[in-house]
Amino acid sequence: MKLLEERIRKDGVVKEGNVLKVDSFLNHQLDISLYNEMGKEFKRLFADRKINKILTIEASGIGIACVAAQYFDVPVVFAKKSQSINIDGTVYSTMITSFTHKRDYQVIVSKKFIGPEDHVLIIDDFLANGCALKGLIELVEDAGASVEGIGIAVEKGFQEGGRIIRDMGMNLHSLAIVESMDASTGEIVFREQ
Amino acid sequence: MKLLEERIRKDGVVKEGNVLKVDSFLNHQLDISLYNEMGKEFKRLFADRKINKILTIEASGIGIACVAAQYFDVPVVFAKKSQSINIDGTVYSTMITSFTHKRDYQVIVSKKFIGPEDHVLIIDDFLANGCALKGLIELVEDAGASVEGIGIAVEKGFQEGGRIIRDMGMNLHSLAIVESMDASTGEIVFREQ
Repeated sequence: MKLLEERIRKDGVVKEGNVLKVDSFLNHQLDISLYNEMGKEFKRLFADRKINKILTIEASGIGIACVAAQYFDVPVVFAKKSQSINIDGTVYSTMITSFTHKRDYQVIVSKKFIGPEDHVLIIDDFLANGCALKGLIELVEDAGASVEGIGIAVEKGFQEGGRIIRDMGMNLHSLAIVESMDASTGEIVFREQ
Repeated sequence: MKLLEERIRKDGVVKEGNVLKVDSFLNHQLDISLYNEMGKEFKRLFADRKINKILTIEASGIGIACVAAQYFDVPVVFAKKSQSINIDGTVYSTMITSFTHKRDYQVIVSKKFIGPEDHVLIIDDFLANGCALKGLIELVEDAGASVEGIGIAVEKGFQEGGRIIRDMGMNLHSLAIVESMDASTGEIVFREQ
């Protein structure tokens, strides 16, 4: 998606340690006009799929998912990061490792809000090593629901997540895939799509 | 807002300990059509205010704020819950106590995204004891920005938060104010507005 690539080039900041800061428009301050264009693009990319629910994960996926959901006319469910293990069996849960925060945490979704009848589009802001996404896929599959597609705003194409998820046969579309980036020059190269 | 009150009566669940569960449409599974109606109502309520930014707090405020922001045509900034204290001076921070989780946590907003030129509408899903809201007001005031208004989806009118915030002179509107509720009968009484 050219609009997003141009915005990343203009306002994204490349930092040492493979960090791409897009906090001025994507995940701390949120440009809702851009979110709307991203939502339309997700709808175009997944137009052939029967989708009745969007699943995302707190916190920065929620805004993108909610704005996109308007183009699909479906509810959003967001997976919650939890510090306690739920033992009453009312939630699906999985453990994921955060690349950004370098720690493990439990992620849960209430069993009330996802089940075998659901055709799910997963949306998130970032794809790097793919841990969060693998966790969300696991939650959907545990519920007996189907993953119809996965829509990501920014994929770090030089990390393994995208390849792993595509190798699983998933219908994954990332609106911008960063092929390489250079903290010393600030240069960002996107994968041709 | 009648539509929200009716939805709370229909799908809200009153639990012991003054807990109102609205997770099927407001803060775990999210009804985006309802969010749109709430966004329009916030715009109507704050139409006379010059607002250039919406501030909310992760996680469940984000979706409401993003959908509402479309009616104001402004960006959203969400305050982040942080476990580490930032010592490099790049963020405004405050400590708040969670009613739900019974613990204190640090809340931060980058100094890049809020400043003296900003006229802020604060949006959140719930108002109970007002701790989160007082924290957000403090962040805005620390930044030298002005709080033009506060829009809440559901206020628990029998807790002190609403009174405290109104006594501060804040322009607070809650779309539904629960005057009382009864876990044994499930009955919910709303304040006339």
